[in-house]
Amino acid sequence: MVVKVAINGYGTIGKRVADAVSKQDDMEVIGVTKTRPTFEAFMAVKKGYPLYVATKDSLEPFENAGLHVQGTLENLLDEADIVVDCTPGKKGAGYKETYLKAGVKAIWQGGEKHEVAGFSFNAMANYEKALGRDLVRVVSCNTTGLCRTLYPIDRDIGIDWVQAVMVRRSTDPGDSKKGPINAIEPVLKVPSHHGPDVQSVLPHININTTAVKVPTTIMHLHSVVVKLKREASADEIIDIWKNTPRVVLVSGKKGLVSTAQIMEMARDLGRPRSDLYEIAVWEDGTHVVGDTLYYYQAIHQESDVVPENIDAIRAMLELETDKMKSIEKTDRALGILGGDI
Amino acid sequence: MVVKVAINGYGTIGKRVADAVSKQDDMEVIGVTKTRPTFEAFMAVKKGYPLYVATKDSLEPFENAGLHVQGTLENLLDEADIVVDCTPGKKGAGYKETYLKAGVKAIWQGGEKHEVAGFSFNAMANYEKALGRDLVRVVSCNTTGLCRTLYPIDRDIGIDWVQAVMVRRSTDPGDSKKGPINAIEPVLKVPSHHGPDVQSVLPHININTTAVKVPTTIMHLHSVVVKLKREASADEIIDIWKNTPRVVLVSGKKGLVSTAQIMEMARDLGRPRSDLYEIAVWEDGTHVVGDTLYYYQAIHQESDVVPENIDAIRAMLELETDKMKSIEKTDRALGILGGDI
Amino acid sequence: MVVKVAINGYGTIGKRVADAVSKQDDMEVIGVTKTRPTFEAFMAVKKGYPLYVATKDSLEPFENAGLHVQGTLENLLDEADIVVDCTPGKKGAGYKETYLKAGVKAIWQGGEKHEVAGFSFNAMANYEKALGRDLVRVVSCNTTGLCRTLYPIDRDIGIDWVQAVMVRRSTDPGDSKKGPINAIEPVLKVPSHHGPDVQSVLPHININTTAVKVPTTIMHLHSVVVKLKREASADEIIDIWKNTPRVVLVSGKKGLVSTAQIMEMARDLGRPRSDLYEIAVWEDGTHVVGDTLYYYQAIHQESDVVPENIDAIRAMLELETDKMKSIEKTDRALGILGGDI
Amino acid sequence: MVVKVAINGYGTIGKRVADAVSKQDDMEVIGVTKTRPTFEAFMAVKKGYPLYVATKDSLEPFENAGLHVQGTLENLLDEADIVVDCTPGKKGAGYKETYLKAGVKAIWQGGEKHEVAGFSFNAMANYEKALGRDLVRVVSCNTTGLCRTLYPIDRDIGIDWVQAVMVRRSTDPGDSKKGPINAIEPVLKVPSHHGPDVQSVLPHININTTAVKVPTTIMHLHSVVVKLKREASADEIIDIWKNTPRVVLVSGKKGLVSTAQIMEMARDLGRPRSDLYEIAVWEDGTHVVGDTLYYYQAIHQESDVVPENIDAIRAMLELETDKMKSIEKTDRALGILGGDI
Repeated sequence: MVVKVAINGYGTIGKRVADAVSKQDDMEVIGVTKTRPTFEAFMAVKKGYPLYVATKDSLEPFENAGLHVQGTLENLLDEADIVVDCTPGKKGAGYKETYLKAGVKAIWQGGEKHEVAGFSFNAMANYEKALGRDLVRVVSCNTTGLCRTLYPIDRDIGIDWVQAVMVRRSTDPGDSKKGPINAIEPVLKVPSHHGPDVQSVLPHININTTAVKVPTTIMHLHSVVVKLKREASADEIIDIWKNTPRVVLVSGKKGLVSTAQIMEMARDLGRPRSDLYEIAVWEDGTHVVGDTLYYYQAIHQESDVVPENIDAIRAMLELETDKMKSIEKTDRALGILGGDI
Repeated sequence: MVVKVAINGYGTIGKRVADAVSKQDDMEVIGVTKTRPTFEAFMAVKKGYPLYVATKDSLEPFENAGLHVQGTLENLLDEADIVVDCTPGKKGAGYKETYLKAGVKAIWQGGEKHEVAGFSFNAMANYEKALGRDLVRVVSCNTTGLCRTLYPIDRDIGIDWVQAVMVRRSTDPGDSKKGPINAIEPVLKVPSHHGPDVQSVLPHININTTAVKVPTTIMHLHSVVVKLKREASADEIIDIWKNTPRVVLVSGKKGLVSTAQIMEMARDLGRPRSDLYEIAVWEDGTHVVGDTLYYYQAIHQESDVVPENIDAIRAMLELETDKMKSIEKTDRALGILGGDI
Repeated sequence: MVVKVAINGYGTIGKRVADAVSKQDDMEVIGVTKTRPTFEAFMAVKKGYPLYVATKDSLEPFENAGLHVQGTLENLLDEADIVVDCTPGKKGAGYKETYLKAGVKAIWQGGEKHEVAGFSFNAMANYEKALGRDLVRVVSCNTTGLCRTLYPIDRDIGIDWVQAVMVRRSTDPGDSKKGPINAIEPVLKVPSHHGPDVQSVLPHININTTAVKVPTTIMHLHSVVVKLKREASADEIIDIWKNTPRVVLVSGKKGLVSTAQIMEMARDLGRPRSDLYEIAVWEDGTHVVGDTLYYYQAIHQESDVVPENIDAIRAMLELETDKMKSIEKTDRALGILGGDI
Repeated sequence: MVVKVAINGYGTIGKRVADAVSKQDDMEVIGVTKTRPTFEAFMAVKKGYPLYVATKDSLEPFENAGLHVQGTLENLLDEADIVVDCTPGKKGAGYKETYLKAGVKAIWQGGEKHEVAGFSFNAMANYEKALGRDLVRVVSCNTTGLCRTLYPIDRDIGIDWVQAVMVRRSTDPGDSKKGPINAIEPVLKVPSHHGPDVQSVLPHININTTAVKVPTTIMHLHSVVVKLKREASADEIIDIWKNTPRVVLVSGKKGLVSTAQIMEMARDLGRPRSDLYEIAVWEDGTHVVGDTLYYYQAIHQESDVVPENIDAIRAMLELETDKMKSIEKTDRALGILGGDI
């Protein structure tokens, strides 16, 4: 069976999910939607994705721009087994009724609330619980990053509590409107929503978070403090991560001293769009003081959730019931590493 | 008695300490040193500060640039009661012998190690212990900020432990060489030196810190988590700070949502160089969950230590034995606020 | 006679014009308006400016924020001889009828079109033509900068044509919303509006301009090429500027190598808000090749028009009929330099 | 014949030239050199490039880092037909003697002076003159950009003079050390070296340039003014560029409003490292006023010279004597577009 996947919204996440789906042998992209005839719409056509518009109103501007459109979202959903909602944050919930009415399974991204799907997904943490589900929410880039590194520590060592600060990029590289240019902006709602969001996947982890926005476009960086349930060495922790999918260990000693070099490494790795699907953890920034673990991780906000979307599709359609098999299949198709760089 | 103050190094800190000394009635600037004839040297002359050079080698370039020089550092120290070392970080220790030989008292900045003076100073925390001392180190801008807000909480409520992340500006506004332009750079030595540095002033506070560098020039921002010794409300905490000198409460509700607006407010307050000597704490970013306090504070790295230097001079020369009287005298002269903005 | 000045809009320009008016002996601020109770409104009250709101709707939010308001714009205009419109760009024209109805003279800023007043002002270029006028537009920061340096060259040497590129800061230091963070954005409308805007003041100068937006907040920088009517040396050009009010010569040799150091110099000069009213021209960036002059100038976008507003008030109310006397009076009151720094 | 290419220096340019050579069927990479065992050295090995060190001193640090090295630069040159020098700017000239001694042909990059090779290369402009040459310098990214768009205008319409301003990115995306963070820095040497550098390829073009550095990492942007020898419409100009290799037309109307979206488009095109080998010219930013042409172009500083290096190798080894055939062969192998995006 080759699952027919519709992508609603062909922006930062949507275009990546489309490409990732295309690289799997058990699913295919049957169409993507776009609301405005920008260069990204031209790129979609160039890549051969059937192009649809959200509503009929958009048909005319697309035709005027010389872009042939296959139909509307409704037409697209008619043919789909599952839709991956990649509309902008807080817009996706508004499509729920449309998806339900069309009788398709649906995946939302982390910009929507847990309640839209009633289930929040991270492959390593709860793949099995997604098997056969109709509605799933893949958690945000930051939450995905925290789940990836905390889940195996909790599993193998045990976590008493977590305090994490998200130093957030302010906008994506392709945007030139948003700032700040020269300021640091704290998220005054404290603790921030990231802690409860981790708990939507890992409910028993006691985590509180704060967040600040900084003038960079390329990655989020987390400074994480974990009170462990028992003493452990930094080496033990690092070994756990080396055996965790979608986590890579990087090192300042090799010149990877900031998010700039991490992204440069991703470019050298030859990933599409120079993405880094993995969470990068600094090996020489990981330290344990007594039973308190400190570490830094860098999150490629545009792409880390992409493989999670693939696994979510596979679980929901029950294409694969074994979590590790799905993760491996996805990672092989996407060239995802793991271990030490 | 009007104390004769020499300023060794007329850069970011030195020029501010010079101006602050000039505004006091119990001390005066008898000269400042400069190593290169830049615009700052011209400004020093324009302001009427007698200009000296660090070594004889510099005499010629200064004369060539049309800057008349009064002599060398040695000549300046001959006339001084005290020298404030404002040379670049890690250079000040090299002058210790010169200062001792000249028989002058000396203050270093936080770029030097505790050991250079054997005593680290913050006015609120340990003014009395500085009385009559010959050598004092005023702690760095970040440490000063942490001491200002933690000391009164510890005094009035009690602190079990502190975890703080310093989101650091990468260079000062007047510099155009240093980056990064688009990256976040973690300090891989964890915990960072800021925790132990706080303990050089407040030895019994159990504090661990990490730090990341971000592409901004205007302020550091701290995200602080404090485990209190007893439950307390956010209001109780805020009231303590409202009664603490050199701490101001700011509010996102008034549009002060990032370091950009805080600095704009400082410009509107009319301070010299648009400085903000006070630590700015977000009132609506201060929250207590059980006995855990979360808060954000913004640190004007160029100026928060300036009033501390004045108090240190006063303590070392025993111009005033009462800490609160010195602080009030300094703050009145510099127009320092406190309370709510 | 002390002219009663109303300031409509207490933002970036308005607050500076208010302070500048307050420093003159022939005019006074009788009130400022604000639309929202931000920290800037609190600052206005702290400075003693009577606070008004644009419309009655704003009365309640201001009272709720604890800010006492004197009345509405209409009430304020009743008492005024002249209003300086400092509302955001393109909003000022909407107030024209209100100003005319109130029977007050009015000044607009360069964000409005020439037509709103029918007369565009730069003190050196056309002070006399503003004498007694009811409506005047002070041209924008960029246009003011171009007029300041081109007018005397045209007067003393003659200009055949000008090509200028404006490398523009993207937003002001107090803003944290606008970007870009990491991009250069050209103004695709070519030639840009800056050329015709210069011609609204200096109609016979043949000038074409382009503009690009870059990720900085502190100054605009112009790269200007001038075809002279006769050969001239760089020294001759520099001497002309040294004798031109509100132009200062700076030098890379003194360490003033970018807008960062220029603004640092302004901080050291002790101007309110660390402003630089003068246009800074690089002496060692001024070169002549045959009859073609090349130069760079830096524009402090927040403040260079402030003294022009003062002169405009003086001309419109005929407080002074001699242009140089008004300029000198304004500059003395504001501590404006000129010449070489 | 498959030409054996050595790459001296595996940094920003070197790693790209290596990959581009690998994609040709008439040349191969026989080794790359590196001076320090950074992540880029690990990447070279991962890609299968034989790794060499510049000097014997480097052998030990590489072995310590676990990197097996094939030998030194001398050993590598022994096997090579040609070396592409990609050492940091101004270092390459120092290797000239080594290259001559080894009897290999050599290519330098634009960071070196014209004199190092006595011949400066741009494929469209002077491919034929490079046929059989032993020493060639491929001009810098900025000069390459100017040659690409000016050469066909000069050929088809004629150029009287050019004034261009280079708004330069300050450092590359993978660097986190260099700034400025918040400043614009003019190149005070005027006219800048870019004009004469264009003349090293196109000697008869009368061009003067200035340059400013801005806080961005992703692209240079040129604002170019061209006095044409005859009147021409913008459409005629655009048509010329549409038929010029390695020039693409972009449009603000499609949302490509800044360098951010241009680079995002490059990511979507799927190029290695998200590079854009082509010069991007804004179609809706191209305007003609009388006989004066205005246009903006964006330069991907890391990659635009890469195809030029390939053509230079081909010309020097006389693998292909027809310029258009070499360009087409290179472009096909690299997936280079042209025309309208």
